[in-house]
Amino acid sequence: MSAVIEHLRARREESLAQLIEYLKIPCVSTTGTHVREGGEHLAGLMERGGLETRIMETAGHPAVFGEVKGPAGAPTLLVYGHYDVQPAEMAEGWTTHPFEPDIRDGRVFARGSGDNKGQHFAQVKAVEAYRATNTALPINLKFLVEGEEEMGSTNLGAFIAENKALLRADIACSSDGSLHPSSRPTISLGCRGLLYIELISRGSGKDLHSGTYGGAMASPFWRLIDAVRALKDENGRVRVPGFYEAVREVGAADLKAMREIPDPASELTAALGEAGMRRIPDPAAFYEKTLIQPNLNICGFQGGYSQEGVKTVLPGEARAKMDFRLVVDQDPDKLFDAVRVFLKSEGFDDIEVERKAAFFPSKTPADHPFIEKILAAIATQGGPPIVFPNFGGSVPDILFTRDLGIPSLWFPFANADSNAHGPDENLRIDLLHRGSELAAAVIDGLA
Amino acid sequence: MSAVIEHLRARREESLAQLIEYLKIPCVSTTGTHVREGGEHLAGLMERGGLETRIMETAGHPAVFGEVKGPAGAPTLLVYGHYDVQPAEMAEGWTTHPFEPDIRDGRVFARGSGDNKGQHFAQVKAVEAYRATNTALPINLKFLVEGEEEMGSTNLGAFIAENKALLRADIACSSDGSLHPSSRPTISLGCRGLLYIELISRGSGKDLHSGTYGGAMASPFWRLIDAVRALKDENGRVRVPGFYEAVREVGAADLKAMREIPDPASELTAALGEAGMRRIPDPAAFYEKTLIQPNLNICGFQGGYSQEGVKTVLPGEARAKMDFRLVVDQDPDKLFDAVRVFLKSEGFDDIEVERKAAFFPSKTPADHPFIEKILAAIATQGGPPIVFPNFGGSVPDILFTRDLGIPSLWFPFANADSNAHGPDENLRIDLLHRGSELAAAVIDGLA
Repeated sequence: MSAVIEHLRARREESLAQLIEYLKIPCVSTTGTHVREGGEHLAGLMERGGLETRIMETAGHPAVFGEVKGPAGAPTLLVYGHYDVQPAEMAEGWTTHPFEPDIRDGRVFARGSGDNKGQHFAQVKAVEAYRATNTALPINLKFLVEGEEEMGSTNLGAFIAENKALLRADIACSSDGSLHPSSRPTISLGCRGLLYIELISRGSGKDLHSGTYGGAMASPFWRLIDAVRALKDENGRVRVPGFYEAVREVGAADLKAMREIPDPASELTAALGEAGMRRIPDPAAFYEKTLIQPNLNICGFQGGYSQEGVKTVLPGEARAKMDFRLVVDQDPDKLFDAVRVFLKSEGFDDIEVERKAAFFPSKTPADHPFIEKILAAIATQGGPPIVFPNFGGSVPDILFTRDLGIPSLWFPFANADSNAHGPDENLRIDLLHRGSELAAAVIDGLA
Repeated sequence: MSAVIEHLRARREESLAQLIEYLKIPCVSTTGTHVREGGEHLAGLMERGGLETRIMETAGHPAVFGEVKGPAGAPTLLVYGHYDVQPAEMAEGWTTHPFEPDIRDGRVFARGSGDNKGQHFAQVKAVEAYRATNTALPINLKFLVEGEEEMGSTNLGAFIAENKALLRADIACSSDGSLHPSSRPTISLGCRGLLYIELISRGSGKDLHSGTYGGAMASPFWRLIDAVRALKDENGRVRVPGFYEAVREVGAADLKAMREIPDPASELTAALGEAGMRRIPDPAAFYEKTLIQPNLNICGFQGGYSQEGVKTVLPGEARAKMDFRLVVDQDPDKLFDAVRVFLKSEGFDDIEVERKAAFFPSKTPADHPFIEKILAAIATQGGPPIVFPNFGGSVPDILFTRDLGIPSLWFPFANADSNAHGPDENLRIDLLHRGSELAAAVIDGLA
């Protein structure tokens, strides 16, 4: 066992305690609370890990950049992560407070535990172990941890464009998303894209008493749901012209990889229960539908009264929050325009469409030499990893593959039932520690 | 000028200060905060007003009952009101905090200022003025102020059924709702009924990441909006069988009264602005559509993410909050059953329907002798009042007209732009004080 691994194992309790402090900071980018505080806390952890670190401003929340040099001529690995988290409230159904981390059943429960604090934290701890044991780093390392991923990485593209030299690297390897339900080491070679939109039906502009005005004035929700409904046909296919035309045919290697992913049925059942499984009509096609097919989801509606109980209100405005998940080569910019044109053509001139967030889908080839080296290094830790052609969520991978022009590997550490974005988000503590060890294997494997 | 009126005018500042203290209590029945505290505060005000008062328990929030005797054989007037208020949060668009009353432009801004604290408070102050000036009350008075109106008066029917002797009266006169926009004294002889329902589409039971699951699992909102949409046809008519059959033909006297209500167009424009008026396609038919026609409104949707910003979530459950406004003789009990049967017949077996609140529509004849006496008394205060055949909102009037078997008059004091249920709810201070004087006129007129 290497000194690095030995060190990581000896310091597990201390690591967990440090992660818990980090998880206490409610750095919710979408509402803007405590975001800089989260970034500054992380910068402290990175400095301690031996990375020369700085907080770098963007037009929005700051990014944290850190660097540590290896031998001259060695490859450079760029690690990406995000320190911002999704909103979280007890009312969503949390057992314990989302920002008062609780340890139960070998897991740490907190917003951001899996998505994404616990994962880049594991990477930082791996780097720290080299320094602490006076082990020479065999490669150059750069960390870029942003503070806006949960609001669509609004300013990351501009940040990367302005800092290309600083960020120059040979390969990106980022730990976000989650493992296959079996918890076997898992990698993904791309992601689905995202277009998050809001459809807005304007009413009177203020909420009114539905008894006083109802009948003379219609709830703007009536109009809104017609517009939402128009986006899909009765078979659930998106009706926006050109939507499916841009979909690239899935290559044989990716189809093969997808089919080799172990059947997730039993793990899904464990995570979702029977009620959840009834909502997955075709579990055998789970990966096909969540990896290589696009989707249009309704996240929720805003306006009027949306909490527990009764309020008789005629809303002043109504909004639908929807996300498209896109596959290569669907283009969220073109799609946004197409949605607007389509709704107008369907007679919904009165419905406004706002673009809230977008990510391009992306893809890294499995046969790139660095990818092959990393797969081999992971395999030495207990067998070959499960390879996803891409994952179902959306990350700014295109900024690595297209803008920095490097292969990009996603290498999550979090359990499949970590419930990212939902209540009781959690990270298995054994997987947190395994994550640091696997991160060290990647570092050594790239040398 | 009578001693009672003189006293009321001399004590206006003191009255307003007392109301402000009452308005500070956030007694929101639907969330259950501070409700008993609100009732107890009101009981103190009523005791001070000379009413023998007691807090009376119900299966839910308590009611406040008060009584003061007049001459033997005199008629008994039952005053109804409610001390609970609608939910209110700054985020709805309040200029100042809903429970920190603020005085601007001759109005007091606070949740409950118009609906309904300010209005029954004005009645209490009228009674107090008789006692303070040693003026003999010419009639018997009873006050019943409940704490559950904003959640549908859940337990009021049972309370009245159990306390019929205590509540025995010759006529009910309640100040809730709002004046005609001209602010001329206004009465209503009934109300529209209410059926508040939630349609529920069950998903996995917990919110999930829309990237991980979207495509394999559908947002329950897709199904829900189809069910909501099925309740109306493309012309906006309710599709539930029998819905329109129960509507009683409007009598000639009521039609005449409705047509004599001054045209509200200019006042509506002032209250709603141009954006709001564009949402009222036929202002000339405003009263026809809000008084004598039923309606189905969407109050809002619950589930997933319904706040500002972006959250990519696949909701575990989706709910639509809807209110039917009903006219005589539509029956909310029968309608609830019909809605369930209808949705099943349309194939929505999977959609649950919950009944959240219900009021029967009701109607008092304009030619009842007590009504005529009161109309004449009001007329002496500056001309005949505007008479609404009924008002558009829903109150438990049926409990007076049917269960207690007495005529029931609604006599609001609040301005038409008081924005009940919305942000910046307010009460014009001049109308608060006029309310107390008009309440005294009704007491004298009934003798």
